[in-house]
Formats: sequence, C-alpha cells, structure tokens
Amino acid sequence: MPRDAVAMTRQEVEDFLDREFPQIHYGGRTFQVEEVGPLFARMRMEAHEKHLRPGETISGPAMMALADLALYAAILAQIGPVALAVTTNLNFNFLRKPKLAPMIAECRLLKVGKRLAVGEVSLYSEGEADVVCHATGTYSIPA
Amino acid sequence: MPRDAVAMTRQEVEDFLDREFPQIHYGGRTFQVEEVGPLFARMRMEAHEKHLRPGETISGPAMMALADLALYAAILAQIGPVALAVTTNLNFNFLRKPKLAPMIAECRLLKVGKRLAVGEVSLYSEGEADVVCHATGTYSIPA
Amino acid sequence: MPRDAVAMTRQEVEDFLDREFPQIHYGGRTFQVEEVGPLFARMRMEAHEKHLRPGETISGPAMMALADLALYAAILAQIGPVALAVTTNLNFNFLRKPKLAPMIAECRLLKVGKRLAVGEVSLYSEGEADVVCHATGTYSIPA
Amino acid sequence: MPRDAVAMTRQEVEDFLDREFPQIHYGGRTFQVEEVGPLFARMRMEAHEKHLRPGETISGPAMMALADLALYAAILAQIGPVALAVTTNLNFNFLRKPKLAPMIAECRLLKVGKRLAVGEVSLYSEGEADVVCHATGTYSIPA
Repeated sequence: MPRDAVAMTRQEVEDFLDREFPQIHYGGRTFQVEEVGPLFARMRMEAHEKHLRPGETISGPAMMALADLALYAAILAQIGPVALAVTTNLNFNFLRKPKLAPMIAECRLLKVGKRLAVGEVSLYSEGEADVVCHATGTYSIPA
Repeated sequence: MPRDAVAMTRQEVEDFLDREFPQIHYGGRTFQVEEVGPLFARMRMEAHEKHLRPGETISGPAMMALADLALYAAILAQIGPVALAVTTNLNFNFLRKPKLAPMIAECRLLKVGKRLAVGEVSLYSEGEADVVCHATGTYSIPA
Repeated sequence: MPRDAVAMTRQEVEDFLDREFPQIHYGGRTFQVEEVGPLFARMRMEAHEKHLRPGETISGPAMMALADLALYAAILAQIGPVALAVTTNLNFNFLRKPKLAPMIAECRLLKVGKRLAVGEVSLYSEGEADVVCHATGTYSIPA
Repeated sequence: MPRDAVAMTRQEVEDFLDREFPQIHYGGRTFQVEEVGPLFARMRMEAHEKHLRPGETISGPAMMALADLALYAAILAQIGPVALAVTTNLNFNFLRKPKLAPMIAECRLLKVGKRLAVGEVSLYSEGEADVVCHATGTYSIPA
C-alpha cells in the first residue's frame, strides 16, 4: 500500500452484492454503494422502518450491518469478487444516538494482506459531522 | 457480585422487550428469552428467512443482534427495567459457520457497576457444542 | 474440538518462552506458566515494581502482556512450538481495579483452525473470585 | 465537538504523566508527548531494549502501552488533569511487524462525553507511512 487502482467499480460491487447476498435487501432495499476507491468505500443506508428504535433513532444491529457491508464493499473493490471472504472480527464503539435519517458509512482499509484484510469504518447521520458509531473489522480471505 | 437474586423474571424481561422494542420482531417474531438468572440470560433466535446468507447459514448481523439482545436481557434481569441503558461497545469473534438452525445465546455478566455493565456472550447452533460466535459488550446505565 | 491431548507440557511451554522470548523477563522474572491442558492455559504474574500504578494497583499494560502471553501459551500447548504465530487482534475489558497481588490469567481457546486461533482470557487477583480484566484475542498461525 | 481549545499544553501533559505515573519510565525513559491539540495527541516511544522481540521488532505489549498512553494524553489535553480516569476498553489490530525504530502514536478523540471518552490511535514506525497497529479505546471519566 498505497494502491492506486481498484479491482471493481462501484456498480460492479453493487451488482455483486445484489447477486450474491440478496437477503441484505429483505423487507425493502435500504443499502447502496455510493463510492469505491483505493482502500476505500462509502455506503448509504436509508432509515427504513425495520431499522428503527424508540426515540426516533436507528438500531444498533442496523448500524452493525451497515459497517460490515461497507468493509466488505471496500475489500471487494480492492481485491475483486471474493464471495467466500468471511468476517472474523468486528469491534464497535457506539458514540452518539443517530438521528432518524439516512446513515453514511465510510470505510478505510488499513491492511490488505494475503490472508487478512483489516479496515475501520465511521458511521454518520447524513449531513452531520460527528461520528455516530466507529467500527474496526477483519475479513479472512480464502487462498 | 456474586448476586443471588434477579430483579425481573424471564416473562417480565420478554414482556418488557416486546413493549419497548417491538421493532426487534419486524418481519416475524424470531427472538425469545429462554431463561434468566443471576448475572445470566439465555436467548433463542429462530432461523428465519430474514437472517439467512448463501450456503445455508445465518448472517453475521443476525448473530450480532442476538448477542446484543442477550446482553440486554441479562442486564434487565439483574437490575430491572432500564429502557435507557445503551450499548457503548461490542466486540465479536466469528468462529465457525453456523448451521441453518435456531441459535442459542448464553450471556454471562462480568460486571454490573453503577455506570457500566459488561458481559460476554457465546452463540451456538442449537444442539451443537462448539461456539459459533463469541461476543463481549458494554452497556452504559443511566444515573 | 474437543481435543483431549496437548502437544507440549507446561515445562516445555515455559522453556520455549524463556528461549524464544527472553525479553518478557526484562527487569525481573515475573511470568510463570502454571498449567496447560486441552485448549487451556493458566499463567501467573508476580506484582513486580515494574507493573505498578498509583493507588497500589497493577498497570493496564502489565495485564495486557499477561493476557497475551496466556493466549500464546494455550496455543503452544495445543499445536506445538510455533515461534512465528503472531497476535492479530486483542480486545480488553477492564472491569475492576486489581489488588497489589499476583495476577492469574486463565485462557480458554474457542477455536484452533488452520490459520487462526481464538481464545478468551480471564484475569484475577490471586485468591479473589471476581474477574479483574477480560480479554479475547486472535493469533495468526503460519502455514 | 468540534472544540478548538485544549485544557493542558504538551508540557503540562508530560509533567502530569511524570508526576502521577512515574512507573511508565521504569527501566529507562522511552515515552514522550510530542504534540497535543484539540481532540488530538501524538506520542513517541524509543526502541528501548525492554520493548524488543526476536526478529528485530517491537513487542505487542510495548505498542499497547504506547496506544493507551496516547489516548490518555489526548484526554488530559482536552479535559484537564484527571488522574482518576481509567481505561475501560481497548481493542487492537496488529497489522504489520514494526521496524526496530522509534514508534509514533497519533490519537484522535471520537467522543468526549461526561462519563466516557473514546478515541482511536494509529501507530507507525518513525518515518514510515503504513499503520503498524490500530487501536480504539474508552476511558471512564469520574464525576
């Protein structure tokens, strides 16, 4: 690293997710890949009824799903379509109550090795500057 | 600690979750509180279509939601109905691919302080001995 | 798993650590392997001056070093002398202020795969029942 | 946040650490506060014999101690001298083998609340661009 090219475009990553993981859209399509780049991906999640919690806020599990997907999208963009990459570790710090608004996840890859890829993800409520939830995660990459 | 009594029964914890967090049942009821005890809770999640992933397995976000709920159930049972307790940190190690079967989460509280409660959660596929996913988490308890 | 045999004895693990990682004893020998077994290890750390913090307590970094070593000892006992295994992730929850006393670390392995080994470690002040610090960690095992 | 002022200067933070936590210098002074700013601190650790591991590298526990200190320094600079703030959680991803060289830790605070402060820390070998170790951590702030 640094690497200055991506292996898949934004559209290719989104098509791959739709084809291989249709269940992420169960109950209504809410996830969208907004941008990919070298060691980077940004995803967006609509504030669908299924993600809500009392107090007009977004649920923790919805944020965790978004962070995991953003990390996977960044890895796909970097190394190409690897359906069998699996999450081995995720760590979350929940910092603020998110607004009832779309959420943006920005993932930056810290390492892309032969066996493991590691990244960090910051989640924001759309239009806000403060990080709502911060995650780090590891994917194991098949040989 | 140790503490030898609980503040809420299994039924009271389940009723509280149903009343305060109805969205956890969005798309179909899959979560059930099976048992609570001193510093302990066990929850069960049915293998609903909404939790699936390719390869006949359960999704990571479904497991994360289950672990978070089991930790909350154990805290509720220990300290009583605190709707405003919030998760501040969750860490997950994904160890094995879960079977397409109900999942069991067993939570053991490691600390119940005035401000923070910390616990660990082991997730199993029903009827299996190996831990599929291990989590630790922290809740902040309002004053 | 379960596995009912170990690849190294307690003495062999301790000799291996002394030979390969003599720096863990810098400033005075404080770490001792007390027991190893299938998917298990217990280590002890003396309350040496170099581990102290104000308020008659043990420092966080000393506890982190102890937990990391206990995890490594458990892996060595399970799979044999692998000097090149490296820690990839460690997560710590600090639960209570430790007493100025020897600390005991008990490690239980949750997974021993071909590439990754994962375990959890509970740290106690000697003679006390409450967990002072809880850790989970992952080692990457060379091919 | 954002906050545009600090409560302590770099020198005040360093003097505070020296006075309250002299044991961090046990066996030889290696830690230095290089810079503090709003929600930010940078620390440096010399590659002392006590921090080494075979293969001409820096030990994991030394990196963990450095990350924890950098987080504490950033919190001190932000909120002033709070000797009783304690670490409640630390998560580490070890990404690359560090060189036998001084290490730099850059901490960015993600949240400074009334009860909890959360930050992330990136560790580098001096003069290198790649992150060697990434940490996130939480301190509990006394009332």
